[in-house]
Amino acid sequence: MSKKSGIEWSIKVEDGSSVVLEPEHKYGVVRLLDRLKGLVVGFMMRVWMFFKKAWNLGVEDPRKFYHCLKVGVALMVVSMFYYMRPLYDGVGGSAIWAVMTVVVVFEYTVGGTLYKCLNRICATSLAGFLALGVHWIASKSGHQFEPYIMGISLFILASATTFSRFIPVVKARFDYGCTIFILTYSLVSVSGYRVDHLLQVAHERLSTIIIGTCLCIITSMLVFPVWAGLELHLLIPRNMDKLAKSLDCCVAEYFGHDDEESKKNLEGYKCVLNSKASEESMANFARWEPAHGRFNFRHPWKKYLKVGASSRSCAYCIETLKSCLDSRSQVPDSIKNHLDSACMNLSSSSSEVMRELATIVSTMTRSAKIGMAVQDMKNAVLELQNDLKSLPDLLIQPNDQIEKKEVAASDITVMPLIKVIPVVSFASLLIETASRIEENMVKAVEELAESAQFKQPKDETKPKHNQTTSKTVSDEEKVIIALQQV
Amino acid sequence: MSKKSGIEWSIKVEDGSSVVLEPEHKYGVVRLLDRLKGLVVGFMMRVWMFFKKAWNLGVEDPRKFYHCLKVGVALMVVSMFYYMRPLYDGVGGSAIWAVMTVVVVFEYTVGGTLYKCLNRICATSLAGFLALGVHWIASKSGHQFEPYIMGISLFILASATTFSRFIPVVKARFDYGCTIFILTYSLVSVSGYRVDHLLQVAHERLSTIIIGTCLCIITSMLVFPVWAGLELHLLIPRNMDKLAKSLDCCVAEYFGHDDEESKKNLEGYKCVLNSKASEESMANFARWEPAHGRFNFRHPWKKYLKVGASSRSCAYCIETLKSCLDSRSQVPDSIKNHLDSACMNLSSSSSEVMRELATIVSTMTRSAKIGMAVQDMKNAVLELQNDLKSLPDLLIQPNDQIEKKEVAASDITVMPLIKVIPVVSFASLLIETASRIEENMVKAVEELAESAQFKQPKDETKPKHNQTTSKTVSDEEKVIIALQQV
Repeated sequence: MSKKSGIEWSIKVEDGSSVVLEPEHKYGVVRLLDRLKGLVVGFMMRVWMFFKKAWNLGVEDPRKFYHCLKVGVALMVVSMFYYMRPLYDGVGGSAIWAVMTVVVVFEYTVGGTLYKCLNRICATSLAGFLALGVHWIASKSGHQFEPYIMGISLFILASATTFSRFIPVVKARFDYGCTIFILTYSLVSVSGYRVDHLLQVAHERLSTIIIGTCLCIITSMLVFPVWAGLELHLLIPRNMDKLAKSLDCCVAEYFGHDDEESKKNLEGYKCVLNSKASEESMANFARWEPAHGRFNFRHPWKKYLKVGASSRSCAYCIETLKSCLDSRSQVPDSIKNHLDSACMNLSSSSSEVMRELATIVSTMTRSAKIGMAVQDMKNAVLELQNDLKSLPDLLIQPNDQIEKKEVAASDITVMPLIKVIPVVSFASLLIETASRIEENMVKAVEELAESAQFKQPKDETKPKHNQTTSKTVSDEEKVIIALQQV
Repeated sequence: MSKKSGIEWSIKVEDGSSVVLEPEHKYGVVRLLDRLKGLVVGFMMRVWMFFKKAWNLGVEDPRKFYHCLKVGVALMVVSMFYYMRPLYDGVGGSAIWAVMTVVVVFEYTVGGTLYKCLNRICATSLAGFLALGVHWIASKSGHQFEPYIMGISLFILASATTFSRFIPVVKARFDYGCTIFILTYSLVSVSGYRVDHLLQVAHERLSTIIIGTCLCIITSMLVFPVWAGLELHLLIPRNMDKLAKSLDCCVAEYFGHDDEESKKNLEGYKCVLNSKASEESMANFARWEPAHGRFNFRHPWKKYLKVGASSRSCAYCIETLKSCLDSRSQVPDSIKNHLDSACMNLSSSSSEVMRELATIVSTMTRSAKIGMAVQDMKNAVLELQNDLKSLPDLLIQPNDQIEKKEVAASDITVMPLIKVIPVVSFASLLIETASRIEENMVKAVEELAESAQFKQPKDETKPKHNQTTSKTVSDEEKVIIALQQV
């Protein structure tokens, strides 16, 4: 036996000698504990990171915090119907429907809440009346047939309503209403067979739902309201600005004028690529919203979607433009320098047009400058096209003696066209982007301005006009004076 | 007075003479009726068109009809709990929760139904236990404080849960669960104050919800199931095929090889542009689905999203490519003819790669041909690049006497580069598309094949391989024979 201190375990093996068992288990336990500790710490870290991320989400947009508090407050208020006896006696046990309504109906935007509220109220009353009617008919036909009539009507209505949810228009506007319609019809028709005071149930349910929805509407509209329409109205010009920045950065990077900041802004167009779904849901909610801020009830939200679509078509172009960045090193510097200023000019004038359009949309005021900006962009396109036209002169460089007019054709060095192709296709993509801005974006914004009756620009330009006319007058006067002096 | 038959109305005017009133009102009524008839007919026509469209929606995809019937049947079955007395006595008045569960939980896809079912059950039990626990603590602290403790806990939990719905991960997987959590907690905590047999309520609600969800799961999984995973699995290669067709048609149209059919297929890429949202929701639902068909429980659905994203990046390119069609008439025919075959070749080999990738995804079998197809595409790119390289020779055409070597430089006619730019940028966009197919699509499909463990191709290729080796052997033999003969 070993003389080491501590306890040791030994086992007698078959040949009579004993084998000392090393206290592996001790280290094993320690290792297990270590691993467990690691796991717990790792888990805690992940939970901590998760909460940190979530917190940042709210810090970035505090309205998300407000929304949560609003939901909490609305629920507290509606539970008072239960806690306070007088109120409880008033609406009876179905006060539970008010609580349910608040939980299910409260959405982030006012439009979303209104959409759900109106859908819920209309669908509940429609289904309630229908169920009562069918129930009345069924009860006339005798107790025996009642369940069959109710069951078959439930089957037909539920199937038809479920099918209607596949129709895009219904899906967009009445999806929630369809669910509630089936729900109410089945609840009333099923409990109608048991509960005798059917009318009272229907009445109670409707009134509690109205209480719940009113509470939701009031809370969402009066306490830090988030209007879907306003969100859409802000999103569209923000996306345009992002596109403008991306375009500028992309061209700057191509010609080596990029800095740290431009790298960050380059990816902005990606937000625009996938914005369709959120734009559409916002426009869908916005149509339910009453007049708010600068928007009437029938503000043309659909036109915003058109502007969004036109921005996306530009974003596709910029996406392709960005992929040209990889091949920029193949282009000879002489060619790059030749096109540099024209391309930079076109990109800055294009992004200027986009920014101007963004300003038009966000201020809801027509701009006097937009025509000029578009003209600038067109001129920049012409300039770039001219520079492209003069490219062949650069491509064909006589080997020597440039002064000598008569050079043998065999002496002419032709710079391979293949070296110019990347920059040429870059330039033509840039021209394509400009033409999309002009044809899609400008037109879409004009349509929006037309149907939303954007304000005429303030008299900013008029004084200018007067100034110029007075200036020309003074010029004319000068001429007259000069003539008189002659 | 006039002698006309019929009644006339006359009025005595101030000067004594009478003015006959024309029976305008009669025509007025007729006109009103006509207009009313027109309105009614117009309305009926619109309703009819609406129904016709809806019907076509179902005819195109009969599974939509099946879904509606499934919902109807499930509701009928669950209402039997009410209609049949023995069952009714079993689960009591809360059978209404089973009906509600079926209405709210039944979704088009199995994954959607499972997502809602599991969320509903988990959230209900979690919230129920929590509410019971808090209620127990509150009841220990005295009747006076009970409503305050319950109210404050409700406020905190509701706010926190509402906030968690803003977190993307939670939103994607547990959005419905969050709603149900708040709902159940508020219902139990609020009714806990009134109803004494709280445990029984919680138990009844949970059991009826489980009955409802089981019914939904069984119906959606066994009767004409629509698997979200399978849908995604079919959608991705379908989109690829559409892209391939669009690319082919676009290039064919550019070089004037288009026919009637190609015009139709040209727009196929547009489906791909906006498919992100639907792909993501399908992948979200698919993760809840058990193993079905060829898919395991942990099938890498996320990799499908990557393939989808790569398809979309190609679609952006094709979108830009399509806008080149407008400028095709500016290009001189000689240049077009020069690039025609190379472009057609590249487009057909690119679309061949896309089709091959689509086949790989849809058959879940790796392909022996894909390497070859990609190589073909690369060769086509090189061929097109060579053709582009030889363009300058075409551009510079000596005015006359091509035979004469010594031509004065001033005599050389340079075809303006600007006329070539459209076709050059078209060609380089085509090359960009090919490189995106190679870099994004092929890689994404490879990753998918790797993690989903796609089958190796059947021994189709092995014999081929043997064949080629035997062929080379025979070639070698030939050489040996030839050598021996020498």
